[in-house]
Amino acid sequence: MPSEFDLIARYFTRPTRSTGVVQLGVGDDCALIAPPANESLAVSTDMLVEGRHFLPDADPESLGHKALAVNLSDLAAMGARPLGFSLALALPSADETWLASFARGLFALADTEQIELIGGDTTRGPLTICITVFGSVPIDQALRRDGARANDDIWVSGSLGDARLGLDILMRQRKLSASDSAIALQRLHRPSPRLSLGLALRGVASAAIDISDGLIGDLGHILQRSSVGATVGADVLPIGSALRSQDQQTQYEFALTGGDDYELCFCAPPSQRDSVLTAAQSAGVLVTCIGQISEASGLRVLDGAGKPLNLRLRSFDHFSNP
Amino acid sequence: MPSEFDLIARYFTRPTRSTGVVQLGVGDDCALIAPPANESLAVSTDMLVEGRHFLPDADPESLGHKALAVNLSDLAAMGARPLGFSLALALPSADETWLASFARGLFALADTEQIELIGGDTTRGPLTICITVFGSVPIDQALRRDGARANDDIWVSGSLGDARLGLDILMRQRKLSASDSAIALQRLHRPSPRLSLGLALRGVASAAIDISDGLIGDLGHILQRSSVGATVGADVLPIGSALRSQDQQTQYEFALTGGDDYELCFCAPPSQRDSVLTAAQSAGVLVTCIGQISEASGLRVLDGAGKPLNLRLRSFDHFSNP
Repeated sequence: MPSEFDLIARYFTRPTRSTGVVQLGVGDDCALIAPPANESLAVSTDMLVEGRHFLPDADPESLGHKALAVNLSDLAAMGARPLGFSLALALPSADETWLASFARGLFALADTEQIELIGGDTTRGPLTICITVFGSVPIDQALRRDGARANDDIWVSGSLGDARLGLDILMRQRKLSASDSAIALQRLHRPSPRLSLGLALRGVASAAIDISDGLIGDLGHILQRSSVGATVGADVLPIGSALRSQDQQTQYEFALTGGDDYELCFCAPPSQRDSVLTAAQSAGVLVTCIGQISEASGLRVLDGAGKPLNLRLRSFDHFSNP
Repeated sequence: MPSEFDLIARYFTRPTRSTGVVQLGVGDDCALIAPPANESLAVSTDMLVEGRHFLPDADPESLGHKALAVNLSDLAAMGARPLGFSLALALPSADETWLASFARGLFALADTEQIELIGGDTTRGPLTICITVFGSVPIDQALRRDGARANDDIWVSGSLGDARLGLDILMRQRKLSASDSAIALQRLHRPSPRLSLGLALRGVASAAIDISDGLIGDLGHILQRSSVGATVGADVLPIGSALRSQDQQTQYEFALTGGDDYELCFCAPPSQRDSVLTAAQSAGVLVTCIGQISEASGLRVLDGAGKPLNLRLRSFDHFSNP
């Protein structure tokens, strides 16, 4: 008779497809991966904890999607091509319905991106999901945080703030129309990692980051690592379509400081404007130029009249991940 | 003023040493690693949860050591050379004393093995440690679980059962002399990953696994993956020096089914006996031949008189990791 944890293992053990990249998958002491010749391996880890990153009643299928999506978003921000991922999962019990849904959401995205689960660990414990993703990128084409230069344009993909609005809806702090609610919750629960855009920006962008903690905080990481400053125009921010139903202060605040967007924020010299737009078109994603990098340090956000925007500072307190 | 989590980040952010392998360490969306040319990347993940893998009052320095050691043990079992690791850490609060001790234990082992922390994630949550290790090995020299053949010798490194004895001491279920207690607890809290031995066994061993769940269960994985059986002699098992103070039934049971030994169990053709002993000598580890692989399936454990050993079956119920 299979034990409770045999059951869990069964959901996360699939035959390895012969992509050539994964030479040995689940079932040995280690997985073996071969990155393409002359490419570096890009690695990122994210841990999601119940009660902090998601509610106890979170839909497991969406959770499976999101746990992988937020990791893939880091590969996108590096311009890396995804190869595979490992999953460590602590579960209070082996609830088969939950597991089936979680695995469905996880593998649907994995299949879309043609990557494999290469290994991991399951254990009993408070619900915790830790995914490590592996991708590859030629070292000189990686989109790092430290390459922004004065006069570079600052761009963001897609739109901002709807995921933060979705959180308000989830916490019952705001009521919207059914269609706006659906859009906002979709953005919160089902982020789309911008992998194609990241690949298309190789050799075009000077720096990139994914927006997980909010535009201001994440752009701040680029500025810090690149030793530059920036000016951003609040009136040119691509506001999420659901968020447009809210007042301007909320629009600005959520677009500038709301987390969970998983869009890319990237920099590129003005000479690359055509290339940026061509890259975005090839990836099927809208991009918007929201400001410029400056030699002078600090981040200035201006309103439509060119005056510094007065933002509540509380939202700026993001904690740094190692 | 640094936030609570800036504090945590500070403990786990160290300048990247220029080993050539880690091209970009902590502080970007991804780390970048370059495995040596023509080698595969070996990857393994383990998650340790408070209350399941360690007690709430566990010494944080030992915990830092052990969390990394159990992962490195998987690399050892693959014959892989360690390159680096990522750390995802959920913490109920940022207790600076705890963090300093944990980091000390973790980095002492990392420095000994000359590997770097390349990235990770910290978050608030029930204490959970998830480490992913990266190593490299030429694909045709990897020590897999599926290479054992009939008539191969079965070997184990070091000694068995003291870690299991340490658990009894910790749970106050057994009293030993001060010196035996110290030995057993050291084995439980401070396992030594057999990395040098794993490297020396490249091209010598036909299959290998590390003993984390107990010899019987882990050897069982080799037998299953290699479609073979085995006979093991209980009277030739290398019993841990503290465990030798206990009765024979306890010695057999702990050596055969006690977990947390982190020794290597490996197979090699009889023609390789000299090479195995030379490899062990070069690695400074004792190895003991404990039995033989057979074509007939199943695992037979015989006592000194050649009779099947009667073991309590409960301990055999290990759960499978994906």
